[in-house]
Amino acid sequence: MGNPTAAMLVIGDEILSGRTRDSNMHFLAGELTRHGINLSEVRVVSDDVDAIIHAVQALSEGFDHVFTSGGIGPTHDDITADCIAKAFGRAIDVREDARALLQAHYDRSGQELNAARLRMARIPEGAALIDNPVSTAPGFTVENVHVMAGVPSVFQAMVASVLPTLTGGAPLMSQTLRVMRGEGDIADTLSTVAAAFPDVSIGCYPFQKDGAYGANVVVRASDGARLDAAMTQLARDLGL
Amino acid sequence: MGNPTAAMLVIGDEILSGRTRDSNMHFLAGELTRHGINLSEVRVVSDDVDAIIHAVQALSEGFDHVFTSGGIGPTHDDITADCIAKAFGRAIDVREDARALLQAHYDRSGQELNAARLRMARIPEGAALIDNPVSTAPGFTVENVHVMAGVPSVFQAMVASVLPTLTGGAPLMSQTLRVMRGEGDIADTLSTVAAAFPDVSIGCYPFQKDGAYGANVVVRASDGARLDAAMTQLARDLGL
Repeated sequence: MGNPTAAMLVIGDEILSGRTRDSNMHFLAGELTRHGINLSEVRVVSDDVDAIIHAVQALSEGFDHVFTSGGIGPTHDDITADCIAKAFGRAIDVREDARALLQAHYDRSGQELNAARLRMARIPEGAALIDNPVSTAPGFTVENVHVMAGVPSVFQAMVASVLPTLTGGAPLMSQTLRVMRGEGDIADTLSTVAAAFPDVSIGCYPFQKDGAYGANVVVRASDGARLDAAMTQLARDLGL
Repeated sequence: MGNPTAAMLVIGDEILSGRTRDSNMHFLAGELTRHGINLSEVRVVSDDVDAIIHAVQALSEGFDHVFTSGGIGPTHDDITADCIAKAFGRAIDVREDARALLQAHYDRSGQELNAARLRMARIPEGAALIDNPVSTAPGFTVENVHVMAGVPSVFQAMVASVLPTLTGGAPLMSQTLRVMRGEGDIADTLSTVAAAFPDVSIGCYPFQKDGAYGANVVVRASDGARLDAAMTQLARDLGL
């Protein structure tokens, strides 16, 4: 549909072990859709150097933008920044502007900027910092990869910092038709309308309510007139 | 850690557009952890033939087991079964035992087994069916790939059908230490203990409560004695 494409990389053992339920994917998906960027793939990998590097390289090559979440804190399992540097063959070290941000933050709160916290000022060479209004330690952008924190409030703030800098396409619009019939009874009609509107995406999501079968038919398109036309034909062909 | 590895492939535009929040990943992660299988990677792709085939092949080669969710219903956007057949170079057609299951189901409910519903009996050659006690239409296993529905109640029932057939390892156990100090203040200690216990995984997950900084330190291992030993050293070194 001509819109820019994006992928997301979620980094963290805690998601894969089932300890934590990820919420950043759902948040980012909604934000990108509103901004006219098509989220095309998500990967979740563990805190493993090879897995992170491999995924970053594959996604960076395959899509216009990549957003990562997780692994940029002060502890030993926070290895994302070093992996990103390796993935792009760049040096990484404590950067003065990032250190100054952290120094001011910890001075204000009366805490010490110790060696562990200073790790959060390690930034790959040539990266642009991403503002973190919640807890100061910055994210960063290298090439087309935006590296952000996993804590949801910080992740969301960083997405708000990054998104306005990216050119979006026409936002994908959607309308939903709720049909109280089984999926199998409306499948033929959906198929016919989908074939007639190749530029419109039609999805069918079944549900059961009080023992009766129903389906939400979701129609998505970047062009409002085509969306309306597809909805009109669907409603007519389904006898609604 | 010697346990079998697994990957999950979530298939569906509705997740990537932000319309639906996936819950199957979190469910599967917990079940696999309890069963002693390490979930090592998750991918989410759209209803796109090439994306599905590519992901299935990559994950099937890389891990002991692959679990897919979504795209096996009766509508035009349900293309998973055909993609799995293509990914493994197998023929696919309506299979008599699967058709008989559906025929009995729709006879009972007084609905017609029409052409759309019959698509749910299309099974790649040589696959084993996965029992679906919720809504009958079966999943299936081809080589090391277990193909299941996206509707959470059906997905969960199919996981319950498949898991007992798989050999698990020692279940990964975990204990959590709640510490009311900032991550940066305990990072050195965590690092030291992590280095002393290479067979134990130590994760640190920060939180803020009533303006104070804290962290949940999660220690995971398959060996209970090692887990206890790491927890004991952590508590001592943190002065708890």
